[in-house]
Amino acid sequence: MPSLTDLTTPALLIDAAALDANLRTMAAALPGARLRPHVKAHKCTALARRQAALGHRTFTCATIREVEGLVAAGLGEDVLLANEVLDARRLGALDARVTVAVDSAASIEAAAVGGVDAVLIDLNVGLPRCGCEPADAERLADLARARGLTVRGVMGYEGHAMLLPDRATRASLVADVTEKLAAAHAAVGSDVVSAGGTGTFDLHTVATDVQAGSYALMDTAYAKLGLPFRQALSVLGTVISTSTQGYAVADVGLKALGMDHGPSAIDDAAVWFFSDEHVTFAPRRPMRAGDRVRVWPAHVDPTMAYHERVHVVDGERVVETWSIDLRGW
Amino acid sequence: MPSLTDLTTPALLIDAAALDANLRTMAAALPGARLRPHVKAHKCTALARRQAALGHRTFTCATIREVEGLVAAGLGEDVLLANEVLDARRLGALDARVTVAVDSAASIEAAAVGGVDAVLIDLNVGLPRCGCEPADAERLADLARARGLTVRGVMGYEGHAMLLPDRATRASLVADVTEKLAAAHAAVGSDVVSAGGTGTFDLHTVATDVQAGSYALMDTAYAKLGLPFRQALSVLGTVISTSTQGYAVADVGLKALGMDHGPSAIDDAAVWFFSDEHVTFAPRRPMRAGDRVRVWPAHVDPTMAYHERVHVVDGERVVETWSIDLRGW
Repeated sequence: MPSLTDLTTPALLIDAAALDANLRTMAAALPGARLRPHVKAHKCTALARRQAALGHRTFTCATIREVEGLVAAGLGEDVLLANEVLDARRLGALDARVTVAVDSAASIEAAAVGGVDAVLIDLNVGLPRCGCEPADAERLADLARARGLTVRGVMGYEGHAMLLPDRATRASLVADVTEKLAAAHAAVGSDVVSAGGTGTFDLHTVATDVQAGSYALMDTAYAKLGLPFRQALSVLGTVISTSTQGYAVADVGLKALGMDHGPSAIDDAAVWFFSDEHVTFAPRRPMRAGDRVRVWPAHVDPTMAYHERVHVVDGERVVETWSIDLRGW
Repeated sequence: MPSLTDLTTPALLIDAAALDANLRTMAAALPGARLRPHVKAHKCTALARRQAALGHRTFTCATIREVEGLVAAGLGEDVLLANEVLDARRLGALDARVTVAVDSAASIEAAAVGGVDAVLIDLNVGLPRCGCEPADAERLADLARARGLTVRGVMGYEGHAMLLPDRATRASLVADVTEKLAAAHAAVGSDVVSAGGTGTFDLHTVATDVQAGSYALMDTAYAKLGLPFRQALSVLGTVISTSTQGYAVADVGLKALGMDHGPSAIDDAAVWFFSDEHVTFAPRRPMRAGDRVRVWPAHVDPTMAYHERVHVVDGERVVETWSIDLRGW
């Protein structure tokens, strides 16, 4: 079995015990189909299989490629593309139960023309992104049904609440979201109310399924929320240069990390800046060229999307290596 | 021949005419080996072949994978890894002329043990990253020679000057860098002085070769410098949702763009924010679902690194599709 010292750096690592604890904690809180894991966070069918083995056999996706990859991996029992598409033909070609979000006549028409059978009416619940006005949900559901589509219910993603540090503030926003979802669901009918994410996973009362994804691996942004999940994802680097001026340089650059949530962290060090293939940082204790460091990503999703593979590690041992096979579009 | 309307979005595009103009402008300014194109900016052997066809047959890399890929593509005539590595065995295994940057006894030892033949002494010329103190260059060159390595000369990268908007300020910093390079070169000997980048490509006087890469494709950050290169790189997106509140949403998210230089731009629109797979923006004129938009990346290098392929386009026609085959590590 390979060890950490055998790995070329930068190398993406998942701590096996932290992942296992995160998956079990969530499976206890939201068992089975109550959780519809969002695969955009990890883009990895091997990890999705772990989630399925714990009882979550329905999944959420953000891209058509993610849906295709899950179906090809035998995980297509009930896959939701929680996003609007204007060309749904690749979805319609899949031999699987695929549901797509719609928020307009154009996206409904695309689903019908593309050969998709089922839709959720996507509501704008406060984040200025996709989703119809809640008052428009019934009209769109009628339109979808008239176009021959099965309307399975409603969804709404409260991204504006997800990373707020104060739980009470998140709860208050979710209460508002819940009201909108419940009203639209009453108007639309059927059985699905899909919502939420890692930051609000235990705050939903009317949602039938929660679309959390980041909980499995976590990042420094979510770590600030006091959730019962541990940071399982890091990037292993090698110190390639040191300076008498107190800084060191490792080979984990911004092409190995999502940068939109700000700089990633290094234990016992102040991170100065990232370049394409470098991080310059001031370690508390002197470091030498060849030393290894762990960089803790600030945003799990775009970090995973940069790497071809991830190593699952138990201490110094690499116990599995998984392909990040749902990348691209 | 496919057209833009045939492409799945998000799709990375290179404007053929802009690329051609950029390559020719640079080849006229720094002909042949005076330019050592940095492939980290595009990670694409097809584009490197274009550079080679214009006379630049020596290349700069930031990762071992980039070196391996160039060599496999028959572009290994003289490849510089302008970065320190502590395990050089993959470089030593290549049947090509490979030179690696060294800045310490440890990186020299790694080159020797790894079977690399040639090194450049990497100087810290003001950017707190890799590179030895200039006064230490002679000692390291002696050490490398004693270890059986060919010392080809010196290099230094003035990344701190690269994106400064004022040309005079950049020139003043390059003058300081030049002094350091010249002194170290005198002490180290041999024939290479490698330095510079797109922002300083025409400011170097002692550099024998300039390591520019971004000039070929450009981005919104470099566009502010008034350089004689045009933005050739964009990401084609589809409007997937619109709102009566004046914003629209397209399917070009932060997983399709480098985010470290801030948000990318959309013509005739105010960009509000990026999510993993979305951009929310306020267009000056109303848009409809299904409309196409062009997003102009803020940073070319990490944008290329997210995409599997790039389409070279002439107006609405896709004239070539290139694999971005030097990604990963």
